[in-house]
Amino acid sequence: MIIIMEPEATHEQIDTVLERIQEIGLNVQINKGSEQVVLGLIGDTRHIQDVAFQRYKGVAKTVRISNTYKLTSREFHPQDTVVDVDGVKIGDGSFVTMAGPCSIEGLDQIRETARMAKAGGAKILRGGAYKPRTSPYAFQGLEEEGLRYIRQAADEFDMKVITEVMDVEHIEVVAKYADILQIGARNMQNFKLLAAVGKTGKPIGLKRGISGTIDEWLNAAEYIAVSEKSPVIFIERGIRTYETATRNTFDLSAVPLIKKLSHFPIIVDPSHGTGVWDLVTPMARAGVAAGADGLIVEIHPDPEKAWSDGPQSLNEKNYLKMMKEVNVMTEAMKKINELKGDK
Amino acid sequence: MIIIMEPEATHEQIDTVLERIQEIGLNVQINKGSEQVVLGLIGDTRHIQDVAFQRYKGVAKTVRISNTYKLTSREFHPQDTVVDVDGVKIGDGSFVTMAGPCSIEGLDQIRETARMAKAGGAKILRGGAYKPRTSPYAFQGLEEEGLRYIRQAADEFDMKVITEVMDVEHIEVVAKYADILQIGARNMQNFKLLAAVGKTGKPIGLKRGISGTIDEWLNAAEYIAVSEKSPVIFIERGIRTYETATRNTFDLSAVPLIKKLSHFPIIVDPSHGTGVWDLVTPMARAGVAAGADGLIVEIHPDPEKAWSDGPQSLNEKNYLKMMKEVNVMTEAMKKINELKGDK
Amino acid sequence: MIIIMEPEATHEQIDTVLERIQEIGLNVQINKGSEQVVLGLIGDTRHIQDVAFQRYKGVAKTVRISNTYKLTSREFHPQDTVVDVDGVKIGDGSFVTMAGPCSIEGLDQIRETARMAKAGGAKILRGGAYKPRTSPYAFQGLEEEGLRYIRQAADEFDMKVITEVMDVEHIEVVAKYADILQIGARNMQNFKLLAAVGKTGKPIGLKRGISGTIDEWLNAAEYIAVSEKSPVIFIERGIRTYETATRNTFDLSAVPLIKKLSHFPIIVDPSHGTGVWDLVTPMARAGVAAGADGLIVEIHPDPEKAWSDGPQSLNEKNYLKMMKEVNVMTEAMKKINELKGDK
Amino acid sequence: MIIIMEPEATHEQIDTVLERIQEIGLNVQINKGSEQVVLGLIGDTRHIQDVAFQRYKGVAKTVRISNTYKLTSREFHPQDTVVDVDGVKIGDGSFVTMAGPCSIEGLDQIRETARMAKAGGAKILRGGAYKPRTSPYAFQGLEEEGLRYIRQAADEFDMKVITEVMDVEHIEVVAKYADILQIGARNMQNFKLLAAVGKTGKPIGLKRGISGTIDEWLNAAEYIAVSEKSPVIFIERGIRTYETATRNTFDLSAVPLIKKLSHFPIIVDPSHGTGVWDLVTPMARAGVAAGADGLIVEIHPDPEKAWSDGPQSLNEKNYLKMMKEVNVMTEAMKKINELKGDK
Repeated sequence: MIIIMEPEATHEQIDTVLERIQEIGLNVQINKGSEQVVLGLIGDTRHIQDVAFQRYKGVAKTVRISNTYKLTSREFHPQDTVVDVDGVKIGDGSFVTMAGPCSIEGLDQIRETARMAKAGGAKILRGGAYKPRTSPYAFQGLEEEGLRYIRQAADEFDMKVITEVMDVEHIEVVAKYADILQIGARNMQNFKLLAAVGKTGKPIGLKRGISGTIDEWLNAAEYIAVSEKSPVIFIERGIRTYETATRNTFDLSAVPLIKKLSHFPIIVDPSHGTGVWDLVTPMARAGVAAGADGLIVEIHPDPEKAWSDGPQSLNEKNYLKMMKEVNVMTEAMKKINELKGDK
Repeated sequence: MIIIMEPEATHEQIDTVLERIQEIGLNVQINKGSEQVVLGLIGDTRHIQDVAFQRYKGVAKTVRISNTYKLTSREFHPQDTVVDVDGVKIGDGSFVTMAGPCSIEGLDQIRETARMAKAGGAKILRGGAYKPRTSPYAFQGLEEEGLRYIRQAADEFDMKVITEVMDVEHIEVVAKYADILQIGARNMQNFKLLAAVGKTGKPIGLKRGISGTIDEWLNAAEYIAVSEKSPVIFIERGIRTYETATRNTFDLSAVPLIKKLSHFPIIVDPSHGTGVWDLVTPMARAGVAAGADGLIVEIHPDPEKAWSDGPQSLNEKNYLKMMKEVNVMTEAMKKINELKGDK
Repeated sequence: MIIIMEPEATHEQIDTVLERIQEIGLNVQINKGSEQVVLGLIGDTRHIQDVAFQRYKGVAKTVRISNTYKLTSREFHPQDTVVDVDGVKIGDGSFVTMAGPCSIEGLDQIRETARMAKAGGAKILRGGAYKPRTSPYAFQGLEEEGLRYIRQAADEFDMKVITEVMDVEHIEVVAKYADILQIGARNMQNFKLLAAVGKTGKPIGLKRGISGTIDEWLNAAEYIAVSEKSPVIFIERGIRTYETATRNTFDLSAVPLIKKLSHFPIIVDPSHGTGVWDLVTPMARAGVAAGADGLIVEIHPDPEKAWSDGPQSLNEKNYLKMMKEVNVMTEAMKKINELKGDK
Repeated sequence: MIIIMEPEATHEQIDTVLERIQEIGLNVQINKGSEQVVLGLIGDTRHIQDVAFQRYKGVAKTVRISNTYKLTSREFHPQDTVVDVDGVKIGDGSFVTMAGPCSIEGLDQIRETARMAKAGGAKILRGGAYKPRTSPYAFQGLEEEGLRYIRQAADEFDMKVITEVMDVEHIEVVAKYADILQIGARNMQNFKLLAAVGKTGKPIGLKRGISGTIDEWLNAAEYIAVSEKSPVIFIERGIRTYETATRNTFDLSAVPLIKKLSHFPIIVDPSHGTGVWDLVTPMARAGVAAGADGLIVEIHPDPEKAWSDGPQSLNEKNYLKMMKEVNVMTEAMKKINELKGDK
């Protein structure tokens, strides 16, 4: 952290700041120049992020140089982390598709969706048993019954399971049935939940909060990473902006940015990212091209009758068409990675 | 809910939609005109908010007329709800101030802050014992020890206590010490937590989420209200926008808007709303003028040394000055309410 | 400007940056410490804001210390600027109301509105003759005919005129009839127009752009100020955010913030700030309390039949009621300013 | 437009609305049901978008069904418009690259950049001669001298020219040198300028405003289209959101959405969309995959020394690498379009 004093800062003001730095156990590099004094803090500043230096008289600005996260950062861990979901690899250069309904509605529905998903090439089955809903009167999920159904359907089609866990109380039951625990967008900063799932050892699919910054997202991952048990899979699912023509604004720049800043893989969710079924396929293609490690997509045997998220779910025909296009794109990305290898 | 069919919608398409309406147990009013067919759904549509009518062929648009919340709405409960916090009334036309530090740092600090708060006229002491922090390496609160301190300090100065509860697990311990349970901005849509605090019977201070819409906020209150035990106090604390000159964008229009749509009281938090101590006083005044039922403000005996939120905390001198100005404003509002009474 | 080098920056990298600084004619203060090198640029950095120092190898971060605007800043001009609109003072501690219709619709309408406006205490008549409309098929204004009408109506009731000028070509004709030239939100960064109106010598009402930052707004004012002829009146009119319950999000924190950073007065526009007529009065009160120097409000003899902005316009009864409340608030603010004077 | 009356609306209230509809010359379809009355307006509602029906007593909601734009819409013009830039086709299924510096800095710089651009496969040279700058003290462009240079450089390398026109006054001079007139983001709603460039007959590159909605963008295009002379090329360049890790949030969903709603082509600008040079290449790839008709990218022989936008400009090596990857992507898109053709 750098503290820039105002040109007219007094000796006394500077000394007050220096005392405070000493008090909190850090060293300091003092740069006295003709224009202004600049103080460089030396030591681990992650623990002192709340010190209100900008509140001191004579301080013009404070600038944080280092990140507040560590285990999540690529600086700390330069090589890519490959997440192993019981044999299915995410982040190893292959491209993994997760597909399924928004809500698990019954055994028949999830089995039929699993068949569709597998036919298109998905290796991981998604589906919600605990649903975070804006209104208390909306369908809240089948709970453990739903978990049993999705596990059975996934096993039948030799797939893995990703499903959301909404609170600490249900981690155990969800972890019993699921291969990846998903943290929903509304819970990106539910810190108690993050810390708790991080201890399960299961891979955690961490959705970006609806107004989460890249920096907050990386710090949320750090809450999981500190236990050094569960790896993280970032899931970009769109952010809230002024634009209402799409359900969210799908921020695909997050893909190369997260890959630059962190070693954990990132996948994209064009269903929530757009909210409109006929935008899902082009944005899935764009996700591949941006460099994502995978895709999570909502599909349903009969989207008109889906219990939730019908408007953004693909039916079988459109899903299979999307997967063909995604495959062309992943082939193109292989060529591009070979181009890079030549350099 | 109104379903507007496209001008070129076929009889078959209209029939498919009508069948679906019947299937979900609602009646329908069919308006066939020269331009297009308009279907009006009759019955309680709160439970069918997920039906994907817009996904059906031939449907141009769907329009929701009624709200998805009910107990929270002023339609349902036209008169103002007055919240009684163990004798301190909120929403009865008086103006209540809650003041205290961001974090409880120790017994001396919270006692000294309570003294200051009381001296300015605050009746409720605020202070965090469980702190939701962006980084896992930041100070996370004194937990139950902190709760004991704030209770002791409040009792000494004959004040009530508001403090945040972050997860279901800690509701019991927080409720043991606090008079109002606060739900933080990051938890506005932590639905399990909302449902659980709603059962305690304690008043719930519900902060607006950092990107919560007015409609989502009212629905979040509904999760609390459904138990018909705990009343809600809305807390406007600023929203996330593109502007970075302030920590958040303080949306004071929410005050008259919430008062129009709901019967529960609303107070304002100019500390988080602005993030800058010298903007707190003018925005506290503006909050009174907008019609808020109260104010929650961060104060500290020594803001430069506060363990968190120092930049937005008022010291004693500035807090007392703010309270004088707030008092002039509340007097002015009394006159204005008398003007209204004359009409 | 401060340039912070990375800890691992090489001598060569530092030298390259130093050369570039020399090339652009600035001096530098070099701070070599144990952790990293910090370079402080000495001289006027307003002209070199585009130098891409952050693009140089070895540079960790660049931090701008000084503003890119000057004549607009309070640093440069510590005392408040009082704008004199042909005898009506803005920014001298009084509170000025500007009222009138969105569009001038005819002579009778603007005369009737002027009568209403004056009856409530407004000293300045607003009304649009050139209207910036989202769609080319919407009403675009009566143009010069409208200007003649508003001038006539204002003169009849001894009022001043504020009206929008949309392009350089019409400055002359608008300036012939108006006392204050208004720059609309969509033109906040129409730099050619800003520079041109700045040369007229007339006061300029500069609306904040729909997504204008405080910093961009101050820089836009600087385009006007550089001619040192026309004073600026800032107009806060709400910004675009994700919230759709109001037409815009009315950012009242801008009032104390602009008063801290600039010497020019600032007024508020609760009509566009909220977009809903029954929120206008509480937010007008809040604007006074936040410290605004005045108010601009849309009124209409018959809002249901207004040619534009009907939903946010006040009728005579509601406008007169608002003005009574605003007057109570301005009295309260006088008391508060006396309190400050005592200190 | 549909007007939905409240269930408790009186006959008198309904009649008042009906009278108003008649007054403005429209017919109406009255749907009286058991729950509420729904009025369907019949006729061209583009000219009456300002009628404040929502202001009338008894009106619950108004819903616009048809767009306020027409000539820009795909409904009106189902087949794709192919823009012919003096022989270079945009929107015909090929993919066109426009490349060049942010600012034209001199003849040598623009010639050298043209050589680079051509070497990578770009057919159109970009470069600014009139620069809209946040601060009046920043470099404002070489003006007509710059236009001469870019024309000369483009002719030497057999390229076309796209450059920005900032105001009505300069249209003639810019049109003398340029093949495509660009409207910058800050001018997306400078309606006088839009109308004026629309009359030149030159293709117009219409950048999305920094907070422009999709609907406003289409309406802005309509201002150009009404003259039926100049075709429009939409340019997605990122929007302003709360996220600051990138300069803007690059909204690639706009690509398939604009193609669905309009017949005009759309290209993407990953330089402004991200603001960071090492995110430009992945986002250029993503733009191709999303279905864009082309790409506009900032390149510079020496980005560290660029007079503006250095941080987001590519040097020769990185630009050539990007173009190789873009070419792999355009090949992939051809395969995908063939897949579609089979269906």
